[in-house]
Amino acid sequence: MTIDNLNKFCIFAAKLMILMKPLILISNDDGYQAKGINELIEMVRPLGNLVVCAPDGPRSGQSCAFSVTIPLTLTLRRKEPGLEVWSCNGTPVDCVKMALDNLCSRRPDLIIGGINHGDNASVNAHYSGTMGVTLEGCMKYIPSVAYSLCDQRSDADFSPLRPYVERITRQVLADGLPQGVCLNVNFPLLEARGEKPEVSDYQGVRICRMAKGTWYNETTRFHQPRGYDYWWMQGHYRNDEPEAEDTDNWALTHGYVAITPTQIDLTAYKAIDLLKSWNL
Amino acid sequence: MTIDNLNKFCIFAAKLMILMKPLILISNDDGYQAKGINELIEMVRPLGNLVVCAPDGPRSGQSCAFSVTIPLTLTLRRKEPGLEVWSCNGTPVDCVKMALDNLCSRRPDLIIGGINHGDNASVNAHYSGTMGVTLEGCMKYIPSVAYSLCDQRSDADFSPLRPYVERITRQVLADGLPQGVCLNVNFPLLEARGEKPEVSDYQGVRICRMAKGTWYNETTRFHQPRGYDYWWMQGHYRNDEPEAEDTDNWALTHGYVAITPTQIDLTAYKAIDLLKSWNL
Repeated sequence: MTIDNLNKFCIFAAKLMILMKPLILISNDDGYQAKGINELIEMVRPLGNLVVCAPDGPRSGQSCAFSVTIPLTLTLRRKEPGLEVWSCNGTPVDCVKMALDNLCSRRPDLIIGGINHGDNASVNAHYSGTMGVTLEGCMKYIPSVAYSLCDQRSDADFSPLRPYVERITRQVLADGLPQGVCLNVNFPLLEARGEKPEVSDYQGVRICRMAKGTWYNETTRFHQPRGYDYWWMQGHYRNDEPEAEDTDNWALTHGYVAITPTQIDLTAYKAIDLLKSWNL
Repeated sequence: MTIDNLNKFCIFAAKLMILMKPLILISNDDGYQAKGINELIEMVRPLGNLVVCAPDGPRSGQSCAFSVTIPLTLTLRRKEPGLEVWSCNGTPVDCVKMALDNLCSRRPDLIIGGINHGDNASVNAHYSGTMGVTLEGCMKYIPSVAYSLCDQRSDADFSPLRPYVERITRQVLADGLPQGVCLNVNFPLLEARGEKPEVSDYQGVRICRMAKGTWYNETTRFHQPRGYDYWWMQGHYRNDEPEAEDTDNWALTHGYVAITPTQIDLTAYKAIDLLKSWNL
């Protein structure tokens, strides 16, 4: 084998290895520059080839919104072997749709949303753009996971999450998820308990259900000097079943990593008989 | 009783009657000027006092998104006895939150989203701003209903819906809904079957579950003269279980009004045991 042929063979083998690694699509709602998504990239990079397509700025609270009235653009921000990072001017769900149609060389093996700067447990799952990413993946029948840390600060410390993120990601890559089911993984803020975060500080993992909770007093009025009122959204959350130990809220309050299996089927099956009895 | 006192008594009695009528909050995602919401207002006006707070323009595909980065404003558009119409510069969910905090004199007895110009069955429920309104109401523990017509045209004919909207609205006002459950009501487009729409044309009402379906080829690329690419979102929908007679998609395809009881609890309870077996 000549040196030239050996070179060609090595390049071919490298390409083959890239092709054989799992393809992971990553997005978030805090934007491609956020610390959370960049830490996630480093955590899961050993596990596959990554295509990252994330909003060009903050898109918190964007839920499953997609863009009907604006055209979308893509900008390449970073390109290395096994990693491409793109930004998009749309919502988190736009990012997933754009990446699936235009950036991924094949159907991804896994879609990850996060790591979000902030809590996506309970009803927050409905508002969350991170969960938008994950539900979108699930609606495309691709195994999907959302990771969120209960710390909204831009410099939040994500390092204690690493072994959990690696373990959960490996498991989902290996086993997949039932069709129509994705994972909403929330990590408690250990610092709130007055301790320096350490891996050993987590109490472990709990498989949870969504707590019943609600937001109230969500709008605050201000007066513009030229004479009109305007409001900023900033509410208060109330856990409506704080004693329920099987909920995500309980797990987070008690220092556990909360994994909530989440489904795209919204049907309230238990209400079907009641509605049939109405004879509408 | 003097004429003056009689006048005072009549005004008092009128105010009391207004106070005793149900309070209905209405929003949508097509904007306060859309035909669908204005027809809805006329249909349900006899049933209660209405506060309408709707986006100031189209907000289709806004899901449960709310505004984090822009301040919100309200504009009074119409005020008559028993009816106020406000527009808001935010999302459908913003409209509900703003109205609950700032416009409703008391907790509404019912929240209605719609009537939407377009189909919100199957996974569209995740993307729909109309369903955002309804899920938001449900998250506030208020009975909530979404009405949608499978016709996106701005001049869609909503008249055949009237008896159904009246009947369903009356029923929910009278009986309420189970906590955590709202209704996603979709009306088929009769015209598509080559007939002039008439009330009698509907095959009746079916209580349904969400069909499994998915959107594909959702982005279309264009080239901007100055040299960059941009994309518009416009996809194709595929019903992945067209034979399933208990689904909303089937009901609509076969000319039935589809009522899908919809819940805010996203937990995939059936996946909990599997995840526990992973020993994460």
